[in-house]
Amino acid sequence: MTHLLDRLTVPIVQAPLAGGASTPALAAAVSGAGGLGFLAAGYKTADAVAGEMDALGDAVYGVNVFVPGAGPVDPEDVDRYAERLRAEGHEPGEARHDDDHWQDKLALLLERPPAVVSFTFGCPDESVVTAVREAGSEVWVTVTGAEEARLAQWAGATALVAQGVEAGGHRGSFADRGDLGLLALLALLGGPGAPLPLVAAGGIATAPTVAAVLAAGAKAAQVGTAFMRCPEAGTSEPHREALAEPGLTSLTRAFSGRRARGIENRFQREHADAPEAYPELHHLTAPIRAAGRERGDPEVLNLWAGQAHELARAIPAADLVAELAAGVP
Amino acid sequence: MTHLLDRLTVPIVQAPLAGGASTPALAAAVSGAGGLGFLAAGYKTADAVAGEMDALGDAVYGVNVFVPGAGPVDPEDVDRYAERLRAEGHEPGEARHDDDHWQDKLALLLERPPAVVSFTFGCPDESVVTAVREAGSEVWVTVTGAEEARLAQWAGATALVAQGVEAGGHRGSFADRGDLGLLALLALLGGPGAPLPLVAAGGIATAPTVAAVLAAGAKAAQVGTAFMRCPEAGTSEPHREALAEPGLTSLTRAFSGRRARGIENRFQREHADAPEAYPELHHLTAPIRAAGRERGDPEVLNLWAGQAHELARAIPAADLVAELAAGVP
Repeated sequence: MTHLLDRLTVPIVQAPLAGGASTPALAAAVSGAGGLGFLAAGYKTADAVAGEMDALGDAVYGVNVFVPGAGPVDPEDVDRYAERLRAEGHEPGEARHDDDHWQDKLALLLERPPAVVSFTFGCPDESVVTAVREAGSEVWVTVTGAEEARLAQWAGATALVAQGVEAGGHRGSFADRGDLGLLALLALLGGPGAPLPLVAAGGIATAPTVAAVLAAGAKAAQVGTAFMRCPEAGTSEPHREALAEPGLTSLTRAFSGRRARGIENRFQREHADAPEAYPELHHLTAPIRAAGRERGDPEVLNLWAGQAHELARAIPAADLVAELAAGVP
Repeated sequence: MTHLLDRLTVPIVQAPLAGGASTPALAAAVSGAGGLGFLAAGYKTADAVAGEMDALGDAVYGVNVFVPGAGPVDPEDVDRYAERLRAEGHEPGEARHDDDHWQDKLALLLERPPAVVSFTFGCPDESVVTAVREAGSEVWVTVTGAEEARLAQWAGATALVAQGVEAGGHRGSFADRGDLGLLALLALLGGPGAPLPLVAAGGIATAPTVAAVLAAGAKAAQVGTAFMRCPEAGTSEPHREALAEPGLTSLTRAFSGRRARGIENRFQREHADAPEAYPELHHLTAPIRAAGRERGDPEVLNLWAGQAHELARAIPAADLVAELAAGVP
């Protein structure tokens, strides 16, 4: 079987963009332009994902799934954070640990296999990877270092999404903590001992950067933030405005309890010491973020953004795919 | 005048590698192989730099100079750190603020202009840049973000060394704090409003990575860590051994009071909260590091290393230049 990455008209993969920016319309536009669109299953029920898959019909696309973590963290850390948020005048939600409907989503994807199932926040067991592959999907695993790449390879992944520290949103790290820049990561993963194809992710927003990651050995570029101002994306208005301006990004646990890159705003700066507690903090801050979106207040939103976010433009996704593809030799 | 970067046989620039790894032999080997060798003026007297320049004779090379900072920091922070080091059984040196012989080195370089004078830790005044250029040198300024690039351009720099967060040793930051990965940095600096040629630095250790930064718009790749195991380099034995192994790097102020990337060892881990006080802490830890080198103890050394350090190999510098140049289209 030839690899899907060898069959794409254009080596541009849309990043899954869980949390609102991802839509079936965006995935359809990217796949329609010769790239590979992605649905984000994260934070959704299996039924909601199935509905998005219905909307995509026969398109070739991928679905990204969050791999559940080990289990609940120390509840005292979470309680203290909730108390602090209340003291600051916020109305936090109920913290809880969950597996983001893991089994239901797996069952859906085994029944209706998309072209690619990609995993983030961990590497599923070999039995899961085998089942997904036997159902007819390729299995991509998001990695941020050499140990994670080894684990993914052992489990039977068909490709690796190599996520550099430049990337917006959550770090996919589950065994490495080096925060490698994308080029160093590609060099470290691209040696002769690493036969899996690489999809490069992190800060890719221009045609020359696409050309660069291909020159560095990647089979395709995964582009996220650059799509977030496209009309097809579900990005909120205050988020779109923040993306368009130059603005410092940093890694934070303030919103979800897991490190993610966002544009620094008041909430992010004031909660730099948030505990490591995912997805407890995600649920805790959900109503705060929802209220912020409602009243258009960017200072309490998770403004996920890659380091090159100010290069994102408000153009149709198909046009962006065509522009980025100009970097392909 | 055509730019030196357009005249290099091979677009490989040796990073200055202040602190021991830099030698005239290394610079001569790189320049002799068609790249551009560099001397590190940092931490040396002007006389010592002049001696190294004598050793290079008529070669084409660059000299890197540290730009002095604003002035002494709060001495209490430094005293507390010194006390703590003593309590841990170390014998710290005398902390002091100095300008690293700035005027003497400028006078030397104006009198005997090398092909390039590069600056790190700041951007000199326009008057200094003009004087260095009129003496016959190109002026490169190390930058880590768009604001620093603007300052360097206003001051009259002829090129920018764009240092990604992947780079080993000190961060050159003086006005930006985004810790941009190299590809995002090149994309942000490489737009139509940025006419200065870019030299890409940070984690570049392989031919495909050289090809990548050229594809991303850089005129040349500046390579540091990859040269540190070459026989011509002055790298200490324990440092060479640490470079050769996979090992986590992180940014630390523990050794110098200024953020620098090194391989995580005991000293670095245990002093993650060292104060921002450069060069006070450099002088404070100098005898501790010297003693560590003497007894071959890597756990107290500043093991400066870029993120791809394990790809560095013990081969002659000219061979490495030839291998890296294989990435040039």
